[in-house]
Amino acid sequence: VISRKAKIGKNFKVGHYTVIEEGVVIGNNVQIGNHVVIKKGTVIGDNVIINEFSKLGQSPVANKSMSKRPAHQLDGLHVEDNVKIGANCVIYQGTKLSDGVLIGDLASVREKVQIGEDSIVGRNVIVENDTVIGKNVTIQTSSYVTANMVIEDYVFIGPCFSSSNDKYMGEGNFKLQGPILKYGSKFGNNASLLPAITIGEKVVVGAGAVVTKDVHDHDIVVGNPARPI
Amino acid sequence: VISRKAKIGKNFKVGHYTVIEEGVVIGNNVQIGNHVVIKKGTVIGDNVIINEFSKLGQSPVANKSMSKRPAHQLDGLHVEDNVKIGANCVIYQGTKLSDGVLIGDLASVREKVQIGEDSIVGRNVIVENDTVIGKNVTIQTSSYVTANMVIEDYVFIGPCFSSSNDKYMGEGNFKLQGPILKYGSKFGNNASLLPAITIGEKVVVGAGAVVTKDVHDHDIVVGNPARPI
Amino acid sequence: VISRKAKIGKNFKVGHYTVIEEGVVIGNNVQIGNHVVIKKGTVIGDNVIINEFSKLGQSPVANKSMSKRPAHQLDGLHVEDNVKIGANCVIYQGTKLSDGVLIGDLASVREKVQIGEDSIVGRNVIVENDTVIGKNVTIQTSSYVTANMVIEDYVFIGPCFSSSNDKYMGEGNFKLQGPILKYGSKFGNNASLLPAITIGEKVVVGAGAVVTKDVHDHDIVVGNPARPI
Repeated sequence: VISRKAKIGKNFKVGHYTVIEEGVVIGNNVQIGNHVVIKKGTVIGDNVIINEFSKLGQSPVANKSMSKRPAHQLDGLHVEDNVKIGANCVIYQGTKLSDGVLIGDLASVREKVQIGEDSIVGRNVIVENDTVIGKNVTIQTSSYVTANMVIEDYVFIGPCFSSSNDKYMGEGNFKLQGPILKYGSKFGNNASLLPAITIGEKVVVGAGAVVTKDVHDHDIVVGNPARPI
Repeated sequence: VISRKAKIGKNFKVGHYTVIEEGVVIGNNVQIGNHVVIKKGTVIGDNVIINEFSKLGQSPVANKSMSKRPAHQLDGLHVEDNVKIGANCVIYQGTKLSDGVLIGDLASVREKVQIGEDSIVGRNVIVENDTVIGKNVTIQTSSYVTANMVIEDYVFIGPCFSSSNDKYMGEGNFKLQGPILKYGSKFGNNASLLPAITIGEKVVVGAGAVVTKDVHDHDIVVGNPARPI
Repeated sequence: VISRKAKIGKNFKVGHYTVIEEGVVIGNNVQIGNHVVIKKGTVIGDNVIINEFSKLGQSPVANKSMSKRPAHQLDGLHVEDNVKIGANCVIYQGTKLSDGVLIGDLASVREKVQIGEDSIVGRNVIVENDTVIGKNVTIQTSSYVTANMVIEDYVFIGPCFSSSNDKYMGEGNFKLQGPILKYGSKFGNNASLLPAITIGEKVVVGAGAVVTKDVHDHDIVVGNPARPI
């Protein structure tokens, strides 16, 4: 079901049972698989590929224990040229995927996230709201990027990385603040970061390290708690 | 495809390509997205929201190495009022989601699970069978809740938490028993719990801690293995 | 939409909105749910069950930062008899699932993977490309199996296991090489393995252990870094 009020470019290929709502804008040479849902307000550039069972432009959901951002205060999802999106993904409105971004299967990116050029969000990775990710960043499979986090250019995150942003675990007045990962820092698989810490430029964090405080530029840290070596 | 033998309340909104089987009961003011599948026996209350590519009422699956509970011994899935379910979720039959529960995108809850009022099961969280979760519990993104586990009211579980229930890893006669998390206990991101331990009331478990034995009420534990501080 | 050029055996059951492309071969007594997509080149044996929102025969996807294997160099996906596949799974072409394999919900298996008889790939597990998994292996929920890894027969992997294959995290000339898990080794929940190490026969790795080097046959290792006990 493709709305007549969607605006679709040249050389469009689309599978079966796909739903494209009114007001969606799609560029040239776009390929969309079967069973994709694109919600209104979504703008998609040229040469974009979207695989099966992915939903683009999801609105925030909350229950009464959570604060909720009203959907009408958010822009549509903006997908730039040459983006590729895997199967079974959920991408929210108010977010921007820059030129050349790859989103793996079973990944989800929430509202008000910016992802820079040519960055990779691996399969089964979850990115929370209001996070800014630079260009040429790699986030490998099954990693978790918390809300209100900053990831600068050329950061490399191995698989199963985890981060958090709530020092008091749901109880305090602490402003939610995820870690800040500076330019070119690298993270081994299953590294864990505590809230609001800064990881310096070109730092290497070992696999399985639990990082509880700031790390200086160029340091290498390992262990639980992580210490420089 | 909506069965004529489904019973559907007032003010029902449904997207395209959704399948609702015979005998399903749906209350008033329910909103269901595109490409949702609701299997027979499922009962849904009022004011429920269900997003795309979610399957409700899945039957248990097993291969010959696993014990399997016959589907006919299980009740249908019971979704109470004001529940919200994200996209790409899989919720099994024989389970109850109480009033106000939120299930995030890409989450799955197996059979014979009870989730109490207003609790949150975050995105990409997997909850195994026969687990009881209290009310006002928060389970954050990408956490893993094993089978035969007990989570009391007001527990807070940060992202990427893991738990287990099989002391002999597939080999022994040990009855499968997950951890017991008492009232108000809190868990940092990527904390790991061994089988059959009890975490006392209001305990705080640090990020990345590996908890190998019981923790007394009000203790704070960190490290691998976790020790009180 | 089922292609007339698909070859389908006796006693076939299929749900609504399923897409089966031309050239797909399906054996006898196969049950496929609603909203399944089976890409051309896929061969499915007898007595296979496939649940909703799963895609079989996905082609590799890459952006310009990644090496990509051309789809035409890969065979189709081969699913042998008695395989069961959960909901919301993504299984790539060029891969073989042997007789009796179970793939849980929300799991994904990439191209050029072999999975031996009666092995279990749990829910939300991600298996990367070019990995060989033996028979009677259990990989529990939310575990991550990296590319170019070897898992021998009767290995048991608990939930939230992680592994990696890139010693220089995206920068070196190191050949990607995942760990080698020998016959009957066992891994507790949230254990992490570094690249290219060998875990000996019947080894037990404790929950939360971070294994940084080879482990001898029959050893038990725990901690971060992991040491024998």
